Amino acid sequence: VREHTGAVDLVADLRAIVGDAHVLTEPDTTAGFTTDWTGRFVGRADAVVRPADVGEVAAVVAACSRAGVPVVPQGGNTGLVGGATPHGGVVVSLVRLGAVGSIDDASGQVDVGAGVTLAEVHAAVAGTPWRFPLDFGARDRATVGGMVATNAGGVHAMAHGTMRRRVVGIEAALADGSVVRRMLGLTKDNTGYDLAGLLAGSEGTLGIVCSARLQLAPRPAFVVCALVRLSDLESALAAARAVAPLGSTEAVELIAPECLDDPDGSGSPVLLVECAGAVDPSDELAATLERCDGVVEVAVATDAARQRALWAIRDGVPEAILRTGVPVKVDVAVPPRRLGEFLPRVVEVVAEIAPDAKVWRFGHVADGNIHVNVTGIDAFASLADEVEEAVLRLAVSCGGTISAEHGVGRAKARWLALSRSPEELAVLAAIKAGLDPRWIMNPGVLGLR
Amino acid sequence: VREHTGAVDLVADLRAIVGDAHVLTEPDTTAGFTTDWTGRFVGRADAVVRPADVGEVAAVVAACSRAGVPVVPQGGNTGLVGGATPHGGVVVSLVRLGAVGSIDDASGQVDVGAGVTLAEVHAAVAGTPWRFPLDFGARDRATVGGMVATNAGGVHAMAHGTMRRRVVGIEAALADGSVVRRMLGLTKDNTGYDLAGLLAGSEGTLGIVCSARLQLAPRPAFVVCALVRLSDLESALAAARAVAPLGSTEAVELIAPECLDDPDGSGSPVLLVECAGAVDPSDELAATLERCDGVVEVAVATDAARQRALWAIRDGVPEAILRTGVPVKVDVAVPPRRLGEFLPRVVEVVAEIAPDAKVWRFGHVADGNIHVNVTGIDAFASLADEVEEAVLRLAVSCGGTISAEHGVGRAKARWLALSRSPEELAVLAAIKAGLDPRWIMNPGVLGLR
Repeated sequence: VREHTGAVDLVADLRAIVGDAHVLTEPDTTAGFTTDWTGRFVGRADAVVRPADVGEVAAVVAACSRAGVPVVPQGGNTGLVGGATPHGGVVVSLVRLGAVGSIDDASGQVDVGAGVTLAEVHAAVAGTPWRFPLDFGARDRATVGGMVATNAGGVHAMAHGTMRRRVVGIEAALADGSVVRRMLGLTKDNTGYDLAGLLAGSEGTLGIVCSARLQLAPRPAFVVCALVRLSDLESALAAARAVAPLGSTEAVELIAPECLDDPDGSGSPVLLVECAGAVDPSDELAATLERCDGVVEVAVATDAARQRALWAIRDGVPEAILRTGVPVKVDVAVPPRRLGEFLPRVVEVVAEIAPDAKVWRFGHVADGNIHVNVTGIDAFASLADEVEEAVLRLAVSCGGTISAEHGVGRAKARWLALSRSPEELAVLAAIKAGLDPRWIMNPGVLGLR
Repeated sequence: VREHTGAVDLVADLRAIVGDAHVLTEPDTTAGFTTDWTGRFVGRADAVVRPADVGEVAAVVAACSRAGVPVVPQGGNTGLVGGATPHGGVVVSLVRLGAVGSIDDASGQVDVGAGVTLAEVHAAVAGTPWRFPLDFGARDRATVGGMVATNAGGVHAMAHGTMRRRVVGIEAALADGSVVRRMLGLTKDNTGYDLAGLLAGSEGTLGIVCSARLQLAPRPAFVVCALVRLSDLESALAAARAVAPLGSTEAVELIAPECLDDPDGSGSPVLLVECAGAVDPSDELAATLERCDGVVEVAVATDAARQRALWAIRDGVPEAILRTGVPVKVDVAVPPRRLGEFLPRVVEVVAEIAPDAKVWRFGHVADGNIHVNVTGIDAFASLADEVEEAVLRLAVSCGGTISAEHGVGRAKARWLALSRSPEELAVLAAIKAGLDPRWIMNPGVLGLR
């Protein structure tokens, strides 16, 4: 083991590992890696390295560990909490780990490299009896490595789980440069602690995910979407609770009235429900909606084109918000039974701090995962922090969490103690200390430094 | 913090915490806790304590930690790998933690104490729109705490996951006497490492599970079972692969010919398939089976009584084996695509070591989880160890694991390195050292001591 010999020697070591062309040190070439895509988080790095495979990743981490230099793993750089924005140290970009294996048809699984994007995973299984059921807006850039590290969720998590549940095998480089690889893909494997599950959601603080074995799902023969307009928020929540337990329901999205282009000002919220299965779920869905109170209008789409049109209404919400200004984006979840309390109250809570702000509420209502966006205030000023903290505190007071699917990163680290007890934080730190005793892996993220 | 003051003072401390009546030290009262139910594992304990609640559990652990005395958590004592059999120290029996909360209908969740049995969980949700979908033979004695600690599986894991996936909240006492409690029950909660998932399958080596929030599943309107007799093992595996991906399939059990009372010696294996859902799955199942080769006979049961009769055939296999002698029970899993290689080969591998032995193969074929039982040899002699090791090595050489659902405990600790690389074992030890720096929690289990 070599002793720390300074940044110049480290860069030379890195060049020897990945090749000169894959070590970036000039600000104009590293800028895309040191700033997040929203422009909200701006950092700096001593170097950006782009290893080609797990062996190079491990060697890079070992070199950084010897030098005592922080390591910041980065996938598609699509995060929303600054978890991949470096504050010095070495960015390890995983985008070159792009291998996609062949599908194991006996178990519906596929091995993919950390650099494979979500859209590429979807494309790789298109035309087979399988699909990868997770999906979200950043699909063209978000990578599997980042999705595992952040335990990504999205619209189908209510039925198919978050990324943690879809990862049935993992290969990762740890802080000491060792590599753990367990890609068996077994539903049942009780041989000690679940490393894949621990790395999922660890946000780069315990190791670097280099590849994953993903559990696919059978491609459904039938998909049906329904856009349901309801008289009021209470009716919408009741309808969401009614459709969620149907075995075929895969998504229940809420769009609160303020997110809809609604010239009449009718104030009607909308639910977008997606059901899928081997048997046509249309009748069951229709019968369930018929029993719901407050249903004003239902548009059902059974063909792909009309389904895309309905989803465009939901997917257009963030863009519509963006057109009115840069929003403060707050991602929280509360237990579904508490949404009736949270959703009206969050508007009041924001108004108490920023009377001129506009609150937009939408998201994955069956999970209790609501995206609260706030416009009409400067998203970069301290008032924005006050607003965000108030929303987080409200979520916690409703039995919820300060981060549903975006993670904690650096942006929410200061608020982690709202959601986690001192005893829990001590456990996080103990695990961190055990696996990264030099504390070089993504320092600052999850409040661990 | 008090220093170690000897076993007598510890017992006095324990009496002060849980009351005299709940500290057992006489061999005739502790015997039921120091010997496992099969009689294979016989240990000893300085004391058995029966705390009433999480506070008492934590105080007991803190007292043992101060005294440097090992702590062995125990639920229903139904394990098969000696994981709850003490080798000195204090047994903490969780059976008095028997609280069952009310069902949260908005999310289909319920809070239960560690001492609640699986059968009591089933009973608690009977008559509601919900069910707890995991099930296995030891349901009347196995407890939720033990099920979480061992990440129990059973017949429905292919559809509903193992216990790790069903636990959406946890309360646990850790080695330092602190308590972590996170019972939010959120599908999405990305605020750091997943403690519930880490404790699930940790076999008491990281802490004591005191209660859990369980994710229920909607009770299906239709259940259909089919007992399918096939011409040969290959056809049975192909049929299992055909029915497993149906969205409604919840169990696919294989019974190899040697497990069936088969006077004709036809050598036909049998599959027991269970499908369930909101829509009648009968037609889909029948159509799928019609497309399978080698189907000799299908018996379909749509009413509960006939379904119980079909399941009795499967559930009767272990008893039938037991009638021929005490079996060596080996629980392994291999990827489903490798079963065609594993199942014939395991008979040969055992015959090479013990030519007079009989091999019985049955289990959860859709998971690749096969229970290999061996009779005709002394289950307590060294030949039994040789046979077990040969079966484990075969499973690993087929890309599988040395323990599917029974865990490692003390019995399989010596073989853990067959399934886990030195790098993985180092990670287990690092996590253990971080959370239990005095190494008092269930020492020896998982090879951690």
